[in-house]
Amino acid sequence: MAKVAKEAKDLIPVAGNGLLDRRAFFRGGALAAMTGYTLVQSASAQQLVDDPWSLTPGSVVPDYGQRSRFEKDVVRTLSNPKGEARTQHARTPHHLINGTFTPNPLHFVISHAGDPDIDPAKHRLVIHGLVKQPLVFTLDTLSRYPMVSRMAFVECGGNSAPLFSNEPIQASVQALHGLVSCAEWTGIPLSTLLDEAGIDPKAKWIIAEGGDAPHLSRSVPLTKAMDDAMIALYQNGERIMPGNGYPLRLLLPGWEGNMNIKWVRRIQLTETPGMTFYEARTYAPILPGGKAYRFYFLQEVKSFITHPSFGLAMNGPGFYEISGIAYSGNGRIAKVMVSADGGKTWAQAALQEPVHSKAFTRFRVPWRWDGGPAVLQSRAWDEAGYSQPTRAELVSARGQTTKVPAVTAFTSQHYNAITSWSIERGGEVKHVYA
Amino acid sequence: MAKVAKEAKDLIPVAGNGLLDRRAFFRGGALAAMTGYTLVQSASAQQLVDDPWSLTPGSVVPDYGQRSRFEKDVVRTLSNPKGEARTQHARTPHHLINGTFTPNPLHFVISHAGDPDIDPAKHRLVIHGLVKQPLVFTLDTLSRYPMVSRMAFVECGGNSAPLFSNEPIQASVQALHGLVSCAEWTGIPLSTLLDEAGIDPKAKWIIAEGGDAPHLSRSVPLTKAMDDAMIALYQNGERIMPGNGYPLRLLLPGWEGNMNIKWVRRIQLTETPGMTFYEARTYAPILPGGKAYRFYFLQEVKSFITHPSFGLAMNGPGFYEISGIAYSGNGRIAKVMVSADGGKTWAQAALQEPVHSKAFTRFRVPWRWDGGPAVLQSRAWDEAGYSQPTRAELVSARGQTTKVPAVTAFTSQHYNAITSWSIERGGEVKHVYA
Repeated sequence: MAKVAKEAKDLIPVAGNGLLDRRAFFRGGALAAMTGYTLVQSASAQQLVDDPWSLTPGSVVPDYGQRSRFEKDVVRTLSNPKGEARTQHARTPHHLINGTFTPNPLHFVISHAGDPDIDPAKHRLVIHGLVKQPLVFTLDTLSRYPMVSRMAFVECGGNSAPLFSNEPIQASVQALHGLVSCAEWTGIPLSTLLDEAGIDPKAKWIIAEGGDAPHLSRSVPLTKAMDDAMIALYQNGERIMPGNGYPLRLLLPGWEGNMNIKWVRRIQLTETPGMTFYEARTYAPILPGGKAYRFYFLQEVKSFITHPSFGLAMNGPGFYEISGIAYSGNGRIAKVMVSADGGKTWAQAALQEPVHSKAFTRFRVPWRWDGGPAVLQSRAWDEAGYSQPTRAELVSARGQTTKVPAVTAFTSQHYNAITSWSIERGGEVKHVYA
Repeated sequence: MAKVAKEAKDLIPVAGNGLLDRRAFFRGGALAAMTGYTLVQSASAQQLVDDPWSLTPGSVVPDYGQRSRFEKDVVRTLSNPKGEARTQHARTPHHLINGTFTPNPLHFVISHAGDPDIDPAKHRLVIHGLVKQPLVFTLDTLSRYPMVSRMAFVECGGNSAPLFSNEPIQASVQALHGLVSCAEWTGIPLSTLLDEAGIDPKAKWIIAEGGDAPHLSRSVPLTKAMDDAMIALYQNGERIMPGNGYPLRLLLPGWEGNMNIKWVRRIQLTETPGMTFYEARTYAPILPGGKAYRFYFLQEVKSFITHPSFGLAMNGPGFYEISGIAYSGNGRIAKVMVSADGGKTWAQAALQEPVHSKAFTRFRVPWRWDGGPAVLQSRAWDEAGYSQPTRAELVSARGQTTKVPAVTAFTSQHYNAITSWSIERGGEVKHVYA
């Protein structure tokens, strides 16, 4: 459990505008001494009301649990809810959930032709090309292989694209950063299957192909395939969700989302990349000079504050926890700093242990809001030494757009700079550039 | 990722009846050299069929994801599916899931009066009794406090009770061990709230009470309440499931399930335990001498094999992964040993990292089944030095029953001995005492 501070001195701000030491987890005496008020009302047991649900038996426990009806608004937002003949996006509501990973029903999805209805008994995975012995695997066969489990985030290369906009878009963290999620994936190291097929020394790439209608395919260097790539069968304990690749997906921890081929049915070993549609066109951003930038694999270090954030109003001055998520395709998060004064001063956030490589890390820092203006920011460092740029630094190198950028523009891809939330006097939260 | 073995010597069994070194993750050359066959068919890309789902767009991505329709049989089993006026049990299908924790819809539930339909806006948590200042908390207030996230198993004291039976009951791991699950819980350390109320030095216990119709209440030593107890608001990232305590539950990592009060609405600090109905009667097993054994808090070290297990038939000789889960209320799992010959010889299993305290640890060991009889067992050790007894040792101390025991018998509580699966010649798996 968290270390706690017993002394009032631990509640002295460690950075401007009320940020407290990350170890200052409001112990009673200190809290009262420092503030003169508490968050809560005094009470007695007589205040317990016999609510209707405590007076009659509840409903029958179902064989597959469902959420409370009071949680029905915690959903993904859909860019194409009628399933018109274009890409569908379903974004994760980071501000309405908590913890260190994403529940399956809320994991983000981008699908170029909806969720295919794959019969796992008929699905096959073929490994062929520059191998000694081409192989075909059924789900039953794969279930006998040695497996591993690991937390890993998956992020669309276009996540956070709205922050390239010339003016800050007033939208929730779900709208701005909802195309990243994190899950525990369980499956077979791809290296096991490639070794069994026998790798021809000439092979330098794999081309992975999905079993959905567009047969989305991407080229992956063999070095990554033999490092930490996985053929995943399970997502947070259950079989993979239909939108995330049921029954099999390629997992490439830390690499651009669309390369983590969903519904994977084929892996071909080759000497050169395939220059497939999705790597030659869709996911090949145009550089300022006009050339296409291909094979931009890594999702770089990033963080954003989820609580408070746009759409979550503050309810009067006093203590709050500032909390958010950080992640890096390079490995573990080393440090997250939080500012309440727009970057003038910074306090180190507590990181939820254990910190997993290439996965979400929840960070938290206590804050005493005095009711005045504040600008909240987070900035993460990874174990490779990289840190997030400011937005000004990023757009000076990469440009910005005056409207939500089109998918082919370079300014729609790989935004990893700092996000800023402004707390207004009344407690409203706005998205600002600071 | 897992260490791998490149040499054929790594595939030499390390224990009887085909158990292989836990690091021998079938690398191609060695696999072929040692076995003369592979698990899979040779293939070519021509074998890829254009299945119907690859020829048309799929269905619309929903705002709250649903599993594939092919997974509809992965459900909890219900002891009281019509919700008659008695306890309901919903058991986790450990043999049909994988990874290191339990998905929310499949987390086990025991409910004495169904799932209450609690309005979170009206729910209150009151802390009173031997405190300086009684307090009442709303959900909104609690959401401002500093939180922590941790993996923790919750297990019913009566889990595994069928293994006290005189004859081995032929039933799945779900029926035998389905009253334990594991989740990431996010919430507020109870110590934070108790400190804010101000603990009277005379207080030695808390009595926690649920907001459901039976108002299930249990007494907990204050030392545990101040150690690692949590008021949990989130389960695997989402708000807690209705059957698991929505919107608030008391989490007591490693302690008997029913003490982790669901729908918690009241915590009273007292000098002595409450001797409540559920601790004086239901969860007070009768010792062989006839006295009641009360306040048996700890769930001791335990493990069981989930793959293969009863109901999962083997599909011919060859390589398999033996996998299962281990956990201990004392802390971390230190070691799991696996036997394929009914306990004559043992191989050390690989533990999925990171190993969390008081949470599920997935263990795995590769096995080459020769098609002959085998008896699979697992035995776990925890970091406190405790290990599972054999079943013979346990029942010699605790007795056994000739039928599924009644809930008041001591022989229905706290079984943590070894489970044995017999592999028959045809590949069928039976539950045996060995």
